[in-house]
Amino acid sequence: MEEVDHLDFERKTAEFDVDAMKIVWAGSQHAFDVNDRMARLVASDPAFRKDERPMLGRKDLFKNTLRKAAHAWKRIVELRLSEEEASRVRFFVDEPAYTDLHWGMFIPAIKGQGTEEQQKKWLSLAYRMQIIGCYAQTELGHGSNVQGLETTATYDPKTEEFLIHSPTLTSSKWWPGGLGKVSTHAVVYARLITDGQDHGIHGFIVQLRSLEDHSPLPGITVGDIGMKFGNGAYNTMDNGVLRFDHVRIPRNQMLMRLSQVTRDGKYMQSEVPKQLVYGTMVFVRQTIVADASNYLSRAVCIAVRYSAVRRQFGSHAGGPETQVLDYRTQQSRLFPLLASAYAFRFVGEWLKWLYTDVTQRLQANDFSTLAEAHACTAGLKSLTTTVTADGIEECRKLCGGHGYLCSSGLPELFAVYVPSCTYEGDNTVLFLQVARFLMKTISQLTSGIKPVGTAAYMGRLEQLMKSTCDACSAEDWLKPSVVLGAFEARSARMAATCAQQISTSPSPEDGFTELSSALAEAAVAHCQLIVVSKFIDKLQQDIPGAGVKHQLNNLCFVYALSLLHKHSGDFLSTGCITPKQAMLANEQLRSLYAQLRPNALALVDAFNYTDHFLNSALGLYDGNVYPTLYEQAWRDPLNESVVPEGYVEYIRPLLKQQLRISRL
Amino acid sequence: MEEVDHLDFERKTAEFDVDAMKIVWAGSQHAFDVNDRMARLVASDPAFRKDERPMLGRKDLFKNTLRKAAHAWKRIVELRLSEEEASRVRFFVDEPAYTDLHWGMFIPAIKGQGTEEQQKKWLSLAYRMQIIGCYAQTELGHGSNVQGLETTATYDPKTEEFLIHSPTLTSSKWWPGGLGKVSTHAVVYARLITDGQDHGIHGFIVQLRSLEDHSPLPGITVGDIGMKFGNGAYNTMDNGVLRFDHVRIPRNQMLMRLSQVTRDGKYMQSEVPKQLVYGTMVFVRQTIVADASNYLSRAVCIAVRYSAVRRQFGSHAGGPETQVLDYRTQQSRLFPLLASAYAFRFVGEWLKWLYTDVTQRLQANDFSTLAEAHACTAGLKSLTTTVTADGIEECRKLCGGHGYLCSSGLPELFAVYVPSCTYEGDNTVLFLQVARFLMKTISQLTSGIKPVGTAAYMGRLEQLMKSTCDACSAEDWLKPSVVLGAFEARSARMAATCAQQISTSPSPEDGFTELSSALAEAAVAHCQLIVVSKFIDKLQQDIPGAGVKHQLNNLCFVYALSLLHKHSGDFLSTGCITPKQAMLANEQLRSLYAQLRPNALALVDAFNYTDHFLNSALGLYDGNVYPTLYEQAWRDPLNESVVPEGYVEYIRPLLKQQLRISRL
Repeated sequence: MEEVDHLDFERKTAEFDVDAMKIVWAGSQHAFDVNDRMARLVASDPAFRKDERPMLGRKDLFKNTLRKAAHAWKRIVELRLSEEEASRVRFFVDEPAYTDLHWGMFIPAIKGQGTEEQQKKWLSLAYRMQIIGCYAQTELGHGSNVQGLETTATYDPKTEEFLIHSPTLTSSKWWPGGLGKVSTHAVVYARLITDGQDHGIHGFIVQLRSLEDHSPLPGITVGDIGMKFGNGAYNTMDNGVLRFDHVRIPRNQMLMRLSQVTRDGKYMQSEVPKQLVYGTMVFVRQTIVADASNYLSRAVCIAVRYSAVRRQFGSHAGGPETQVLDYRTQQSRLFPLLASAYAFRFVGEWLKWLYTDVTQRLQANDFSTLAEAHACTAGLKSLTTTVTADGIEECRKLCGGHGYLCSSGLPELFAVYVPSCTYEGDNTVLFLQVARFLMKTISQLTSGIKPVGTAAYMGRLEQLMKSTCDACSAEDWLKPSVVLGAFEARSARMAATCAQQISTSPSPEDGFTELSSALAEAAVAHCQLIVVSKFIDKLQQDIPGAGVKHQLNNLCFVYALSLLHKHSGDFLSTGCITPKQAMLANEQLRSLYAQLRPNALALVDAFNYTDHFLNSALGLYDGNVYPTLYEQAWRDPLNESVVPEGYVEYIRPLLKQQLRISRL
Repeated sequence: MEEVDHLDFERKTAEFDVDAMKIVWAGSQHAFDVNDRMARLVASDPAFRKDERPMLGRKDLFKNTLRKAAHAWKRIVELRLSEEEASRVRFFVDEPAYTDLHWGMFIPAIKGQGTEEQQKKWLSLAYRMQIIGCYAQTELGHGSNVQGLETTATYDPKTEEFLIHSPTLTSSKWWPGGLGKVSTHAVVYARLITDGQDHGIHGFIVQLRSLEDHSPLPGITVGDIGMKFGNGAYNTMDNGVLRFDHVRIPRNQMLMRLSQVTRDGKYMQSEVPKQLVYGTMVFVRQTIVADASNYLSRAVCIAVRYSAVRRQFGSHAGGPETQVLDYRTQQSRLFPLLASAYAFRFVGEWLKWLYTDVTQRLQANDFSTLAEAHACTAGLKSLTTTVTADGIEECRKLCGGHGYLCSSGLPELFAVYVPSCTYEGDNTVLFLQVARFLMKTISQLTSGIKPVGTAAYMGRLEQLMKSTCDACSAEDWLKPSVVLGAFEARSARMAATCAQQISTSPSPEDGFTELSSALAEAAVAHCQLIVVSKFIDKLQQDIPGAGVKHQLNNLCFVYALSLLHKHSGDFLSTGCITPKQAMLANEQLRSLYAQLRPNALALVDAFNYTDHFLNSALGLYDGNVYPTLYEQAWRDPLNESVVPEGYVEYIRPLLKQQLRISRL
């Protein structure tokens, strides 16, 4: 095959050092090197092919995933890969599998909630995959509200065992990944009952399947919950259902770091501070934000490349048609998403720092930043996953009809991503938690309690309520102080308005309930401010590479000003900016789009994604789109025969009018 | 099975006559009766089961669709159903199939573009399904821009034939439904070339497959283009690829109503006005708008019912948790979609009238309303399909985690619906057509040309530029004149601002291009005004049934005020309303949500959808959600065996650490 880069002409227009940008995107030279090596390792191994995924039926699809997971483990062991490298291999294999839950939830749960003794026993088995575990929390009738779980763990002091039981249909464990067909063990969350008293939800290690023949142990009913959204996508995962019929486990399989049950059934809290669980939450949500930038950047990469290849209308004098990427409507939908991908990258980086900071403080019994850190991570999880889910679908639409084909890679990307809006905290529920934090922050201002971290600006509330925006020209909207000022004032005023309305309500709780929709909007404003300010912080750093910082600067202001346009109702109704200033910001935004245009392709090249990882005929590095689409079409099972199965039974009789005749 | 209505308590809170509302929704008593009979006919026939769809591989899925299509035809013939009834049967079978294109595109194309002689010959075959046809327009490299098609039809006067040919890879026909595996014939669009001259795109009837054994005729390469978005969904359709290698067809298979090629190869325009094609366009887009309300209402019906069943948080003193439908955040996302479903229903009804009106005018050679009608239908197509696609996904998210299961019905509903944002005119392209119409309308005002129909308000542009909104209280936002005034002023001012900016640009075309993003927003504003005003018109009609009109009134203002909130930036930046008035509108909106709440379930019952049609465990009429989800899970192919296929090869070796050993 000839090697022609059909997008070479586009790459030549870039005004910055793409290799240097790759390092910025990866986070460090080291991270880039590891990513690059592991991505190539996976891409070059035919065992990790994934383009056939949408065509496989459920059973073949699932067996294929088992094969890949085993093969990945084999390669990890053979090549003696480090922990970091192994996790990158799993990332680039890019297929939801039971291993995600084993490494990402089962092991961390034991680490976080198990005693040292428990960790020693179970983690050594888990690290070698001699047992495979999952995380069984949600139930058929209970998702967000963990305190509503119905599964019981009743202590029996006579045998020193817990009886794990599912008292109702709605108490069936439902959704845990890896549960349906693979896991041998689970961390099961259940109401702890000792001596007739309900002590709330606790975690227990329960063996589910025989280690000899994989059959479910007595008293355990377990299976898969069925097909989920999309082709391939999360159907490679055995999300499961699990019911217990008085299953007995030994006392020492309750996770006892935070609380214990003694031999004689006495319930005791340990001295370990409960707040430790928040550290884990910050960690998990930080990975979700990082993931958002991974997924959004993939979709944007596909859409930008195909928009450079695709031409439509605007042919002059028989010349080629106009590249779709040249249309302002395309730019105004696509470039804000490109900017968001970078913005989420940097806020994700900052969250890594936040996690370290929180962990250190917790170890020093300093809980002063915990509420702020918790609100901030909850909000950023919601904001970034919402934007990414919508953004992937927007990128799909921006690819026109061909985006609807599985060979574009976008349908599967969307389907596999959207659950992140629901898991680890439903986005609306989390935004309301942020709002609650904001209301508390405001109410505490009068008592002189100074807000910290990402909420510090609320300490200047009085000033922000009356500040005015300085922007007199379109260029003024490129000043960080102007943009930050507008975003701070907007967020502060939206929150303050809610607080004021709540204060006039009969009860604060009723007021909060009544206003919850406005409160969620205030939370969004607060979180957008965080992302904007962390992007601006990033620009204060020393960033090497010709033109790199200039591009990041443009992306930062595209991010901020496109948000300002989208939410202009917020900014205008709170009087943070004038209609005239909104118009100037929009003018500046259009100018930024024009500046981004020649750099767009290079900015997605900087993600350094392999064609294997993107898995998209539209997003190929070399832009060889149409021959690839054409070839892939013929691989559909329907094309195995020229005349389709069913012709004789269901088509020919119509054409021959035999259906009509058969009636006579 | 016991028959318990778990939602009975909710139904009892309705404050209006649900049966009367069913007639309003259906459009007439007659339409209700036909719909109801045909829906039951399909639902009661086990041959039309569709809950297994997401689990089928491509070939089984497709064969199953062939079976259903043949069965539907058999029933239609057996029961001697009328044309109207037959089309409702196909609607309720609810599975994309080649028949959609045969009846919906192939036959109408021949009707619209064929001569009487051609109609006589081909339609009599098509009506009896002795031939099966599709509509082959789009090509691999050419979608929206029909004039860019590359397929050629070159006339050969020696044999009095056309040579149909695909000169390039990108000229391959790509996407036509029914083409891949079923159609025996196609209306093919190609560049007509006679005597070396290119006369642009024309339609030709081309036989593709043998009527004896279904094999493709010589020179024809045809197949399926592969998997598309979603489980089941459009994968029941054989969207196809088609290439011609100098295929000869007789001269009389060019569709010759609008232009002809004589025996000796002379090209001639007929006297039939070209504008006739716009009539067809108005018709097709009217059906798309009606479809939008069908799809959106289905998603809303599922989400409302499940939100009434589902409980989460808020348990007081051990009582049941709060119904999710009681949460304001849920209401503020769900009720505007419920209102949109009704709004689209009524604007769709009005479009039927518009189609009749346009047709009558065309027959009388009156083209005065054509541009307005064309812009209006283009815009409404874009607006309603965009909102519906996003709305279905929003409903899915509002169902929490379970909405991600195929058994919720929502993933397939989304996947099967989204292409409507792209086909029959990409939504962005169409909005820009509307904007072009608006700019022209404004520029013609100075020449005294009075805008008509949905653009008539533009005739009051001067007045609308300086009008002020009268709303002084929340209640004022329930006055039709206040709401209409605000929407008219917003739309007029957004369009006028664009027109003014374009006029200061070096060239109008450059100005239009540069501003296209703002122009698309102005088009959206214009279209939303149309929907609001047609809903308000509907309320002026006599509507029988206790409480029915009051509910419709509430829905109308929920629709308008939720838009006003969402787009408050438009209203505020153009000075149509003040921040204070925006706040009052929002206050009124919250009050309307509270009034809708007890009627929400009955308002979706009024759609009169059978459980078969909804195909959703979450949307069951009786609310028996959890047992149904539980039972459906066990039917997944993965649950056929307790120990999964692949255990021995890929799980056991991990657990037994045999992978590690094999390395030594």
